[in-house]
Amino acid sequence: VTPESASSPGALALLGAGYIGGSVVLAARAAQLARRVVGYDPDPAATAVARARGIVDEVAASPEAAVAGAALVVLAAPVASLGELARRIAGCVSRQALVIDVGSVKTGVVADIEAALPWGRFVGCHPLAGTERSGPAAADEALFRDRICFLCPGPRATAAALAEAAAFWAALGARVLTLEPEPHDAVMAAVSHLPHVAAFALAASLAAPLPLLEAQGPAGAATTSLRDTTRIAASSPPVWRDIMIENRIHLLPLVRSLEERVTALRVAIEAQDRVGLEAELAAGRACRDRLVKG
Amino acid sequence: VTPESASSPGALALLGAGYIGGSVVLAARAAQLARRVVGYDPDPAATAVARARGIVDEVAASPEAAVAGAALVVLAAPVASLGELARRIAGCVSRQALVIDVGSVKTGVVADIEAALPWGRFVGCHPLAGTERSGPAAADEALFRDRICFLCPGPRATAAALAEAAAFWAALGARVLTLEPEPHDAVMAAVSHLPHVAAFALAASLAAPLPLLEAQGPAGAATTSLRDTTRIAASSPPVWRDIMIENRIHLLPLVRSLEERVTALRVAIEAQDRVGLEAELAAGRACRDRLVKG
Repeated sequence: VTPESASSPGALALLGAGYIGGSVVLAARAAQLARRVVGYDPDPAATAVARARGIVDEVAASPEAAVAGAALVVLAAPVASLGELARRIAGCVSRQALVIDVGSVKTGVVADIEAALPWGRFVGCHPLAGTERSGPAAADEALFRDRICFLCPGPRATAAALAEAAAFWAALGARVLTLEPEPHDAVMAAVSHLPHVAAFALAASLAAPLPLLEAQGPAGAATTSLRDTTRIAASSPPVWRDIMIENRIHLLPLVRSLEERVTALRVAIEAQDRVGLEAELAAGRACRDRLVKG
Repeated sequence: VTPESASSPGALALLGAGYIGGSVVLAARAAQLARRVVGYDPDPAATAVARARGIVDEVAASPEAAVAGAALVVLAAPVASLGELARRIAGCVSRQALVIDVGSVKTGVVADIEAALPWGRFVGCHPLAGTERSGPAAADEALFRDRICFLCPGPRATAAALAEAAAFWAALGARVLTLEPEPHDAVMAAVSHLPHVAAFALAASLAAPLPLLEAQGPAGAATTSLRDTTRIAASSPPVWRDIMIENRIHLLPLVRSLEERVTALRVAIEAQDRVGLEAELAAGRACRDRLVKG
């Protein structure tokens, strides 16, 4: 321990210089929790932007090099790559460093990372923040303010590591809640992953009328209905591919239910079944009213 | 013509005292275009609220009574009832009165109303405004400000009637565009009616996980994804039942396309087909990017 690192918050290693990872670093810098940040990303364009925006001070050539000497390691790569990333850094990361991730799916991810880093200093995290934007150019130091951050520790995480992770997110302005990986993934399948399936499917189903709509100019896309229901279809396809496949156990029954409900509406419209159609619509409205209060 | 009505803008008859009709009257009052308003609604609770909010000055016992002496008649009832409403008032309404509607579907509605009132003073209108709210309690005098209002005249509408309708909506703050009923309905099926199908279906498909979500408290509904994608599922079921059935010719092919796209996503997730799933998601994102610029 050098005199400098003893009196400083220690280096932060950012693995994955995207929208969420970049926002974590900017928020940590604003909270005086990241004096020096070393970043790694397989995409040189992402590290260049992260460097230019002052997110990372130094770009490492590998994840292994990035974590050497770090007191805090933030795993902010797509969820499908987190297990492999943890295995790569296992021999290089300090046993005292706190390791957190920010993945949207937790059960398999937490088990994989904890198996690679089994000494109790990893805490699975999921800040409920982010928008349809992606990439470090969108990173925002205020992204976590007043938002929920779930801590989803695995069985090996120590109480000390959990407390440090909670303090970190609280310093970034988040409301910290603890939830086990399995119920976390069941909840997220419903309130985040299925809405993404619906939004991407809705947007894709408008391919045929696109020329008609574009011919209308601004009138072709002037509804707030369209804007709101398809907003998250502007999200990153590779990020959401990984999330949907990773959480398929919880997500698939809900997607089947969505198929059934769309089909039920189509059948009722075809049959001009006013009673049946109104009942379907009322069932949707009742769920919405219970899900989103006020 | 009494001295008073000669110097005044004349009475306005509001048939259907709901959210949109109430907003039209409040906006017309703010623009000094409605000194005296006579309203009719089959629901006494709606007319009571409209009276209490100063939307209507007088409640008529029938549509026929409401339109007697009116210089402007606003048909603001659900689209399925507009043809019958026009037939009821045909013998009572002044041949000089301008008659407009505010329905979200136009082809059949405009043909029906024009057949009942064939002297050229009816202009089909569709203000692209409104939210998931309903009822006169939600009426808002600023609802049409800077919003598009489509004029969808039928073949009998006179140029004078069209100009009066355009001036009316412009005075309410709307941007007036003329579009024939058929392309109007094709555009609306895509940018409004299909998004409502998707939102109602998505909300209904969350019935099974509702108890789990409610057990989480605020964390169970904290995502903006869920809020935005299901917002319009809080809309009125009878209003949307009518719109979906009335516009079924344009809507059904899009609903079938939505079913296909949801199924394609489900199949790709089931098969853990990373390439196919990313392609589906990218197709959705590409449509969204073309539909909603910036």
